[in-house]
Amino acid sequence: MPLLDASRDLIAAAARRVMARCDELARVSAAQSGIERVYLSPEHARVNRLAAEWMREVGMTTRQDAAGNQLGRVGDPASAALMLGSHLDTVPDAGRYDGIVGVLMALEVVRLLRDATLPFAIEVVAFSDEEGTRFGKALLGSSAVAGAWDPGWWSLTDAEGTSLREAFLEFGLDPGRIGEAARQPDELVGYLEAHIEQGPELDERGESLAVVSSIASARRFQLIVEGEARHAGGTPYDRRRDALLGASEAALAVERICRAEHHIIGTVGQLEAYPGAVNVVPGEARLSLDLRGEFDGARDSVWSAISAELDAIMGRRGLRWTAREVHSAPAVFCAPLLQDAVREGIRSTVATTEDPAVIFSRAGHDGMAIGAVTGVGMLFLRNPDGISHHPDESVSEGDVARGIQSLAETVLQLAADR
Amino acid sequence: MPLLDASRDLIAAAARRVMARCDELARVSAAQSGIERVYLSPEHARVNRLAAEWMREVGMTTRQDAAGNQLGRVGDPASAALMLGSHLDTVPDAGRYDGIVGVLMALEVVRLLRDATLPFAIEVVAFSDEEGTRFGKALLGSSAVAGAWDPGWWSLTDAEGTSLREAFLEFGLDPGRIGEAARQPDELVGYLEAHIEQGPELDERGESLAVVSSIASARRFQLIVEGEARHAGGTPYDRRRDALLGASEAALAVERICRAEHHIIGTVGQLEAYPGAVNVVPGEARLSLDLRGEFDGARDSVWSAISAELDAIMGRRGLRWTAREVHSAPAVFCAPLLQDAVREGIRSTVATTEDPAVIFSRAGHDGMAIGAVTGVGMLFLRNPDGISHHPDESVSEGDVARGIQSLAETVLQLAADR
Repeated sequence: MPLLDASRDLIAAAARRVMARCDELARVSAAQSGIERVYLSPEHARVNRLAAEWMREVGMTTRQDAAGNQLGRVGDPASAALMLGSHLDTVPDAGRYDGIVGVLMALEVVRLLRDATLPFAIEVVAFSDEEGTRFGKALLGSSAVAGAWDPGWWSLTDAEGTSLREAFLEFGLDPGRIGEAARQPDELVGYLEAHIEQGPELDERGESLAVVSSIASARRFQLIVEGEARHAGGTPYDRRRDALLGASEAALAVERICRAEHHIIGTVGQLEAYPGAVNVVPGEARLSLDLRGEFDGARDSVWSAISAELDAIMGRRGLRWTAREVHSAPAVFCAPLLQDAVREGIRSTVATTEDPAVIFSRAGHDGMAIGAVTGVGMLFLRNPDGISHHPDESVSEGDVARGIQSLAETVLQLAADR
Repeated sequence: MPLLDASRDLIAAAARRVMARCDELARVSAAQSGIERVYLSPEHARVNRLAAEWMREVGMTTRQDAAGNQLGRVGDPASAALMLGSHLDTVPDAGRYDGIVGVLMALEVVRLLRDATLPFAIEVVAFSDEEGTRFGKALLGSSAVAGAWDPGWWSLTDAEGTSLREAFLEFGLDPGRIGEAARQPDELVGYLEAHIEQGPELDERGESLAVVSSIASARRFQLIVEGEARHAGGTPYDRRRDALLGASEAALAVERICRAEHHIIGTVGQLEAYPGAVNVVPGEARLSLDLRGEFDGARDSVWSAISAELDAIMGRRGLRWTAREVHSAPAVFCAPLLQDAVREGIRSTVATTEDPAVIFSRAGHDGMAIGAVTGVGMLFLRNPDGISHHPDESVSEGDVARGIQSLAETVLQLAADR
């Protein structure tokens, strides 16, 4: 049964405001055309100022933390807080909703619940770096909040050679105070995030909203295949050890093996042949492998299957191959209590007897970092055709309205359960 | 029956001199370590001076032509000339025999035949640019001699932005006089070249020398495969149009189709995926295709088969593909008369009852250009393991001795036939 007491008009107005503010934030970009807003940039400072202004407008006290995350808070200063939010940074040539829509929806939830009496404080967070575009390391903002900042990151550099430490100083942040961004488990009730799906599942099902069950486990590898560079004219096939053909077979094997496995997806996004001359048989090829799955075990057994297949391919072709793991993150499961509350929130909004969709997120989210310090719940919004990280990324105003209502219901559900 | 009257010792001394001079020329390099000697460079000028000195030593009159080719001549100035030679330029990080050994062997043939009375003059040519390393266009030296200089080439630039025209002027050549390098058919009896095989066939057969039947026909293409860049996490396989997987299938199809065809070899030496991010499904892939065959028709029918297979692959995957032809050269057949003379030359040298090996050259040679103005004959020397365009490139002194003897016999055979 719905707990929220808000008119359709009020919710529709909230959704309109979210859409208009997504457009407004889209204009804060480092790029002439298209959206690009990276960590510790002038654009980051500008969107933080706008977010802080909008937070104060709904009665929140605001602060920017030691990692450049923008925070707003309402409620008893001594209470633990339910944290709502997402991120405001973007990839290059981005869409206008990934992350942003979740921050703005959280603000509308605060507005809708302004007169409610809640057993916890509410914080809205606009994380400063989720995408990792500038320094090649994702989740910097939420990692700081989770107290998981790695001092080794200070020497990461951007494309211009500016270190993360220098960028902190230029932005007006003190690297020595990074620890102050960290939150303790007893300060938080949980973390709730609304986000576009970044996939086509809801669109295909014809549904607006989904409960997120977990955020994918991911491993990334850099694979190197070594053969022998030879003259393309003079070397018959039997004498070739062509690294590019081995790499091509490897890319196709990744597709074949992952297709056969439920819930595991593997992508070769980079492939290059060396020396890369039109008339030389490639002696070396390098390729990336991105593996994602709902369960760490299934993901790891797929990696074993791929490794065995690569041994066979390279053995047949007289090639050597090596893999360097460059990233590994375990799956983060959404807290059952928060999943239940999100489910109730959706159910009371869309008023159906059927259970709402449950989706695991193949994309990474701030919850992967925040999950180390508090329970995570996520609500997915339908993403037409699943297009994300692209200017064509979209979400409908109707789905945003339903999402705001669901999120407010979820908060009230959690309050009632306490 | 052998026509050459020269002692084993004399021939052995000639081979020793060739090997020593290959070592001497290897030291004339633009690179600190390794051999690199490109068209119109200071190193080109130095090896031309050395070659001219060695030409005069065997009684030749010398000149550098309008394209920087170094020429020597003996015999009646009014007679047509049999041209012997090869090239002195190299690829980067080259071996010391490709081209070079053919020029130096030609000089030893002139020395051995110094007292012979021949019905034609003899010219030795050291072509100035066969590899095309500096300006990306091969056979510049021999094209000038064939009268096939394309005025469009003047604006070709090297990696430093120097145009071919500017390089001519810096080298002390007058671009306006390039036409003077061209030879007329009635000035030439034919062109004879000795060259290392740049392939392993003779090494595998355990033979020293081969008659070359033709120089491969070649076509080169730049292939572009277009799909759609998507988020690697959120996009299930059924929604992907992964250009890299299409390109991988294409590379393997080239191998499969060419392996099934006799005497056609296809190589994908370059492959790159775009945008080339670890977490983005590639929306575009570019790859090169180098196709070589003994016969233009067979090569073209293989290209048709590859095209049909690419249509099928890309159709299945929802991809588009296009091909741009960047190079096309018809096969050049060695003149029957010259092939016979080379065969006789080998037979009388190795003194076997079996016919010598006949090989078509999958690599390009100056004969491809010179073939437009006179008949071409080529003699291949065994190239251990077929390693060429590499510092490990080698040829044995014994094979060089047999090659010199064969080439001298070939010249005498041609003289006897006339």
